[in-house]
Amino acid sequence: MITFDVESTSRGTAARLGRLKTRRGAFPTPLFMPVGTQATVKMLDKDEAMHASEGLILANTYHLWLQPGEHIVKAHGGLHRFMRWEGALLTDSGGYQVFSLSAQRRIEEEGVHFRHHRSGEKLFLSPEQSIAIQEALGADIIMSFDECPPFDATYAYMKESVERTVRWARRGKQAKRSDQALFGIVQGGPFEDLRTYSLEALMETGFPGYAVGGLSVGESKEAMFAVLDALHPKLPFDKPRYLMGVGTPEYLLESIDRGMDLFDCVHPTRLARHGAAYTETGRVNIKSKRYEMSSEPLDAHCDCKVCRHYTRAYLRHLLKAEETLGKRLISYHNLYFLKRLMRRARAAIEKGTFPAFKTAFLEGYKS
Amino acid sequence: MITFDVESTSRGTAARLGRLKTRRGAFPTPLFMPVGTQATVKMLDKDEAMHASEGLILANTYHLWLQPGEHIVKAHGGLHRFMRWEGALLTDSGGYQVFSLSAQRRIEEEGVHFRHHRSGEKLFLSPEQSIAIQEALGADIIMSFDECPPFDATYAYMKESVERTVRWARRGKQAKRSDQALFGIVQGGPFEDLRTYSLEALMETGFPGYAVGGLSVGESKEAMFAVLDALHPKLPFDKPRYLMGVGTPEYLLESIDRGMDLFDCVHPTRLARHGAAYTETGRVNIKSKRYEMSSEPLDAHCDCKVCRHYTRAYLRHLLKAEETLGKRLISYHNLYFLKRLMRRARAAIEKGTFPAFKTAFLEGYKS
Repeated sequence: MITFDVESTSRGTAARLGRLKTRRGAFPTPLFMPVGTQATVKMLDKDEAMHASEGLILANTYHLWLQPGEHIVKAHGGLHRFMRWEGALLTDSGGYQVFSLSAQRRIEEEGVHFRHHRSGEKLFLSPEQSIAIQEALGADIIMSFDECPPFDATYAYMKESVERTVRWARRGKQAKRSDQALFGIVQGGPFEDLRTYSLEALMETGFPGYAVGGLSVGESKEAMFAVLDALHPKLPFDKPRYLMGVGTPEYLLESIDRGMDLFDCVHPTRLARHGAAYTETGRVNIKSKRYEMSSEPLDAHCDCKVCRHYTRAYLRHLLKAEETLGKRLISYHNLYFLKRLMRRARAAIEKGTFPAFKTAFLEGYKS
Repeated sequence: MITFDVESTSRGTAARLGRLKTRRGAFPTPLFMPVGTQATVKMLDKDEAMHASEGLILANTYHLWLQPGEHIVKAHGGLHRFMRWEGALLTDSGGYQVFSLSAQRRIEEEGVHFRHHRSGEKLFLSPEQSIAIQEALGADIIMSFDECPPFDATYAYMKESVERTVRWARRGKQAKRSDQALFGIVQGGPFEDLRTYSLEALMETGFPGYAVGGLSVGESKEAMFAVLDALHPKLPFDKPRYLMGVGTPEYLLESIDRGMDLFDCVHPTRLARHGAAYTETGRVNIKSKRYEMSSEPLDAHCDCKVCRHYTRAYLRHLLKAEETLGKRLISYHNLYFLKRLMRRARAAIEKGTFPAFKTAFLEGYKS
């Protein structure tokens, strides 16, 4: 399983410095996990993914279930071995994709009937099946099968959904046979009482970690932070807290400030594929004509291999010439940027200067 | 400039072991040069391109003239510096692309009027301009601007074209101000007398290296080898011989056997983007269902980083899942495969066993 220790906290913030130990290494928190949806962080090989992360990445159960199929991954010795990943892995439950990608869903107590997001093939996923797939994949941390309703669902719908998701989490825990660490997922949208109900029901069931789901789904910044503000004092102190689907430099720092430990998001790599890079002074669109003659790196403060070697002008040229290397190099930089940001956040928590660090960083970032 | 020495030859073959010295390193021949059309070998970063080559790669003048424009490359210190390439570079003249990619060509003595292969913009390229662009790019070896007529052009057309290409080569040499090594290109299609005329006229002008153009353009294997059989005894012994647009393992070995020293081709990387890999026992289509469960590497004899780390099943999954990493990894392997093949060919020439090596390799490859 896993162990988790909070090593340091400081006044004026709920930010925590922690240590998450898995069978495949120990990881400092707060930690950003790059997303390797289909058994690869998009465009990066395993060594690059390792250098651009702390060694813990996420893969998507839904995608791997459909391609190549979990039985094939299992036959190759599990996901770590299949993708030759020497670090640790977390798989999500598939729930998010069922609700965000697929069409014609029908939710029943037993599970969800839906159609393949491309082929239209009829599919079904239940809490037990999600666990079985995740057991076949063999990640170190796995997630409970949940419904992720839209943030603006009615109270009545959200209540029904949260209650079912709690029952699904219990069924998942019951079904699990492996020694993987299964996290519960707190849902409830913007409704504080439903969030509290969800968390307390999950805590009663007992999980080695708790995720906050149903955020970063299009709601406002204020609405999201309001949920975290209300929720974080109630989350168990000694368990890792995983905020799903976050994020960007700003959202990461604000969520760390609200006591979150683990994060994942496709944003850094997706942004890169659109030709934009994180820098100390904000997001930069490298395709812009203004960088045609720039012999500057993406970010003068960054020591990643892309910033050490390549200029903005060259990266712009690659993007304009539709050479995929451009997207690949910016993907690497963006992940490395978040890795470095998390390192600096952890150092600031340790020194007791996190609030000042956050303010200074965000002032520079938004300038 | 460059120097070239033939270090070894052996009975029963025209194959030669040579050494090409440039300002940016010395290279053993026979040598395959990966193609980095738009200032990158497709999908590979500079370190991968270096590992998968001997350090000499090709870039395309036509593409770089249009994007980002040679003035931008020059302003960044030339092509080596722009793309952060620590090896040597060869640029072609742009002629091949003018004749293969663009529409509505009008060939005049002065040069060629044509339209941009995508935008339709009106463009003009002359021998002097090709040299000027190549001087701005700053490659170590540059090529004469030539017409590359279809292999099945009439004798009358080919004669007119070859004579003009010879005049263009002389104008290019006259125009050159740099100390780059400018190669002449022998044209003439299947016509032995025109090939001979072309070669002798170029030798009279005098170049530090001679390329054979107008082959590997769709003609039959027999037709191509017949041209090389007739031509190679007439090529100057002490100058490098560059066979343009070749090739595949088979064509490379057959052309080495016919006294050729340098080669370039997009085939290994293009093949990879179609999901196929070179192996000791022939070409393999990795997308095939038969590799779904294969824990074998692409090629059990290969020691490249892809074959050391990844299985066919994983590579197949990446291709099926449309993850670009799959194409990237196979691109690397295919280039490395040719690098290794060239090494083995050179070792065989040195030992005097090239004909036996060629026969044995091709028997295995076609099996």
